[in-house]
Amino acid sequence: MSVTEIRARELNAKKFINEQIRNISKTVGKGYAINALSGGVDSSVVTLLGHKALGKRLTTYFIDNGLMRQGEPQAVVSLFHKLRVPVVLIDAQKDFFNALKGIVDPEKKREAITQTFYKKVFGKLVRKSNASFLLQGTNLTDIEETVARIKRQHNVFEQLGIDPKKAFGYKIIEPIIQLRKDGVRKIARALGLPGSVSQRMPFPGPALAARVIGEVTPKRIYVVRKATAITEEALKGTKAFQYLAILHRDRVTGVRDGKRVFGLQIELRCWESIDARIATPTKLSFGTLRKLADKITTEIPEVVSVTYNIATKPPSTIEAI
Amino acid sequence: MSVTEIRARELNAKKFINEQIRNISKTVGKGYAINALSGGVDSSVVTLLGHKALGKRLTTYFIDNGLMRQGEPQAVVSLFHKLRVPVVLIDAQKDFFNALKGIVDPEKKREAITQTFYKKVFGKLVRKSNASFLLQGTNLTDIEETVARIKRQHNVFEQLGIDPKKAFGYKIIEPIIQLRKDGVRKIARALGLPGSVSQRMPFPGPALAARVIGEVTPKRIYVVRKATAITEEALKGTKAFQYLAILHRDRVTGVRDGKRVFGLQIELRCWESIDARIATPTKLSFGTLRKLADKITTEIPEVVSVTYNIATKPPSTIEAI
Repeated sequence: MSVTEIRARELNAKKFINEQIRNISKTVGKGYAINALSGGVDSSVVTLLGHKALGKRLTTYFIDNGLMRQGEPQAVVSLFHKLRVPVVLIDAQKDFFNALKGIVDPEKKREAITQTFYKKVFGKLVRKSNASFLLQGTNLTDIEETVARIKRQHNVFEQLGIDPKKAFGYKIIEPIIQLRKDGVRKIARALGLPGSVSQRMPFPGPALAARVIGEVTPKRIYVVRKATAITEEALKGTKAFQYLAILHRDRVTGVRDGKRVFGLQIELRCWESIDARIATPTKLSFGTLRKLADKITTEIPEVVSVTYNIATKPPSTIEAI
Repeated sequence: MSVTEIRARELNAKKFINEQIRNISKTVGKGYAINALSGGVDSSVVTLLGHKALGKRLTTYFIDNGLMRQGEPQAVVSLFHKLRVPVVLIDAQKDFFNALKGIVDPEKKREAITQTFYKKVFGKLVRKSNASFLLQGTNLTDIEETVARIKRQHNVFEQLGIDPKKAFGYKIIEPIIQLRKDGVRKIARALGLPGSVSQRMPFPGPALAARVIGEVTPKRIYVVRKATAITEEALKGTKAFQYLAILHRDRVTGVRDGKRVFGLQIELRCWESIDARIATPTKLSFGTLRKLADKITTEIPEVVSVTYNIATKPPSTIEAI
């Protein structure tokens, strides 16, 4: 299957939106559709397109996997509530943490999250519903990166030659598959989504699990969630492409109350990039970096060391795992 | 046992040197002494004091444990050769790597190095010799930090209440035990040692093993040795108190030849400090940091990521393990 790219600057947003609404209506016919909203720009756009095409015949789920950022599930649900799009919040934290128990290999962690999401949580919702269509926010870069094996994507079975009908029992509709991120953002703005969504920083599919090296536990997610909140708050004023906090598995020596401890280390990355294909670390001031390190080690006493990434992509990647 | 501190500014170097030479002569009498030179300022001062006191009745060994920096064993031996102090170079690399095999716990690594040094390598040299006196470069800070359990020191059996006579079969003489680092540096200059020794940056006892998180293998020492050489060369112009490269055990994602790899990460630390008790990261320019990261990832292709420490001591420590 080949996909024709629509470049952002050649994209007629209104026309594209109308076409996709028509396509979705036509494909689903009198049937029912279902989709999962993550709060990212891709799934937000697809949720709005689907809602405009299908109204109540689309059920949108927000699955709280326990790996979200601070306050994220509530913020996403309440935003769509304001847009008059009903979203069903599913608390599946236990399912995900159970599936992740004891796993340290990054590929196996991704696989555990994907399988829990599709087979256990979302798959069950689909099987219980009368929907046979799944709306999904796959974009062009997702396909290319999966083919190039730069990263694995959970949402591209079709492109990898796996029959999704057979695999999970439904048909996938991918309204934004011809767009890259800049095109999707243009559509988001045209749909009236606020800047917090249309200009939202990229965030990995496995969410904070992608920011934890080694085992993902509620305790470790708590640490990286807090570090992420502090980092995002401190750096939101920068024009950086993306910034993130990573919890390392390695322990390093620190001093707490005059005693030697083996503490945790948080690595910060802040990237300048156009499209994530190449990237350089942002030249943050030492004042900003120092304040950030102080705040993290003060508010999260388990953390005794903070580093800042100084390598470019390539040979690094944006995320650590 | 209590020790009276001599502060650097109150230290009369000539007088101190003459007193210590006399003390060593008197203690050793007509016996023989032995000592191990690491190339650091402490053991270099003690070697020179001992040599002046005992001449040929002191045998000085430089034990190459395989954990030294690039060219270090040769540089140290040739410096003392120029000073007309004979130094015997012992290649004990295999002993140390065998002892370190499979060990990841930092305390156990230190213990393996200590035991290999004392019991296996140096102990054997002592037992084979007719020396019953061991000269050792313990300074005041070593004792205090051991008592405070901030770090373990291999050279303070006496202070911990362990009888060194019983433990290793010889008596320890510690000529610089009343001095701190600044005092030792003053004595080094007065003894005519070059700036490369008298002003030498602190370097940990377990050498590059202290710069490797996780298992210490010849391969991993090779990586951290190369990163250390690049870092020391790039930062020698700074007036920083200490700078170091640490090889992490965690692997992070990188791209090599268009393919995704799990590569190594090097963490750099560069400290501003007076006496290592408190320290802040040096405000290096982003140009310097970027060049350093590029050089490390280019010359050591296994490394795909480089970070720079931005936390202070406390809660961090100077070294990572």
